[in-house]
Amino acid sequence: MTHPLNFADRLIERTRTLGHPLCVGLDPHLPMIPELFRRGSMAPDDAETIAAVEAFLEEVIDRVAGRVAIIKPQIAFFERMGWQGMRMLDGLCRRARAADLMVLLDAKRGDIGSTAEGYAGAYLGADAAMPVDAITLNPYLGFETLEPFVRAANDVGRGLFVLVKTSNPGSGDLQDRDVEGEPLFGRVADGLSRIEADLLGSKTGWSSLGVVCGATWPDQARQVRDALPKALFLVPGYGAQGASAEDAVQSFVPGSNGLEGGLVNSSRAILFSEPARRAASHESWASAFDEALNKAINELSAAVKA
Amino acid sequence: MTHPLNFADRLIERTRTLGHPLCVGLDPHLPMIPELFRRGSMAPDDAETIAAVEAFLEEVIDRVAGRVAIIKPQIAFFERMGWQGMRMLDGLCRRARAADLMVLLDAKRGDIGSTAEGYAGAYLGADAAMPVDAITLNPYLGFETLEPFVRAANDVGRGLFVLVKTSNPGSGDLQDRDVEGEPLFGRVADGLSRIEADLLGSKTGWSSLGVVCGATWPDQARQVRDALPKALFLVPGYGAQGASAEDAVQSFVPGSNGLEGGLVNSSRAILFSEPARRAASHESWASAFDEALNKAINELSAAVKA
Repeated sequence: MTHPLNFADRLIERTRTLGHPLCVGLDPHLPMIPELFRRGSMAPDDAETIAAVEAFLEEVIDRVAGRVAIIKPQIAFFERMGWQGMRMLDGLCRRARAADLMVLLDAKRGDIGSTAEGYAGAYLGADAAMPVDAITLNPYLGFETLEPFVRAANDVGRGLFVLVKTSNPGSGDLQDRDVEGEPLFGRVADGLSRIEADLLGSKTGWSSLGVVCGATWPDQARQVRDALPKALFLVPGYGAQGASAEDAVQSFVPGSNGLEGGLVNSSRAILFSEPARRAASHESWASAFDEALNKAINELSAAVKA
Repeated sequence: MTHPLNFADRLIERTRTLGHPLCVGLDPHLPMIPELFRRGSMAPDDAETIAAVEAFLEEVIDRVAGRVAIIKPQIAFFERMGWQGMRMLDGLCRRARAADLMVLLDAKRGDIGSTAEGYAGAYLGADAAMPVDAITLNPYLGFETLEPFVRAANDVGRGLFVLVKTSNPGSGDLQDRDVEGEPLFGRVADGLSRIEADLLGSKTGWSSLGVVCGATWPDQARQVRDALPKALFLVPGYGAQGASAEDAVQSFVPGSNGLEGGLVNSSRAILFSEPARRAASHESWASAFDEALNKAINELSAAVKA
């Protein structure tokens, strides 16, 4: 067992020590990579592009290490660069974990039977090809399809974040539809309660079963919290998508060092602030990056103290 | 434009010529790789494993070329082997397309905004890092999240297969729940009708908007066909999952050379028949493989003639 400790225990202990729940998202959207790091045409499968993005994200990882508990690479942007992007992602995950950063892979995977076992084995299992600490999952194929991930979470101390209510404007197309008196996202939350109970951490009482609930829907987040009192919340939508720090922690509850119970993600407001994108020297980039990072840390620290 | 022709037109013209709708799934589940090709421990990230699986699947591609219209690699099994698995998949897709096989990537992707654009760009766009002809998608995040894929389908003649009713026993957990008098999978089908209309082929009248409907649920497949008369059906569950050829073509309709309107997938019954798994010589493997392939082709040819 690489990590005998329950994921939720590890994560919550770190966020208590740091005093904030910030998760830094790694979304290497090519058109937004800062000037200082750009090389050549930035075409997705160009060797220069791969080297440029890797240099940028290595610096990001080095600068956030020790300041946040966890980072969240969005695998779509690495797949955009083909297998070389996946090789880069593999190296970045290893670098982050060596620097004592936890890694939550935003992959939104979901499939049936041995195919789900394939995904669980790829990222969470004891012999994972690209080991990470947690992964995001899509529940549309049914709760049984989450089981291979639950087994890996139990066996090697990993975490699972299941999509419940996503942050996008059209998330209601299916998630808000009325299913016998309750919205579909509420039915998904109800269906996760057995897994929540299976993955409780003995130290903190939090579960390694998490849910994705966008900061753009604070009322719905409170409803999901009622259904899943011990689930960790992964909250996207803070920062670039317009939600405030206070909205983002709607589902959090009082803990030993302020409100706790999840992660608030920020990707672009930190990676791609205007001053950081335009910086002409390494020194000015680093200072602009730190300013954006500190702003998020300070806002969230204040929100969980309140 | 690499492929100016509409995906549905290209696919249906090929299945008419061949006289059957068989799609061969590439599911390299490591414990099942035939004896003849196994090398070393078959650990997922071992260089010998990568070489063994690649040699096996190259032979499979060469043997099915000219016999079927399309193959369906399941990306989970390649991700299981890390970035080296993705590099292998990239090579296999290129080999297949060079042999005039279409490639449907079974990835079940789904995400929001520019992240969805990342996936669409990675696999479907004009400058895709790993170009394929079609992809499977998960609709849980809402219909707007399909738009980047629809644009790529229109621009470069690609196909989209959206999960509607999956073949697994627990697919009903969410998909069968009653949404204001209709099951959720029916609501998904209804929501796809505008995209169906946007992607019609001028030659055959079929749409490059497809749906995934398991052969294990023939009644539900007929219901989805009523909602989407021009959608292509990708039908898993035939063969190893127990559904008959007749069940698999429940959603098909009379065309110019028998029943048409979709693809019936078979992966393991073809790749991993007992005689093929145990074959001691290349000749006996090839003959066992061809026997399993011919059985599926013959059953499905008969089912669409009936």
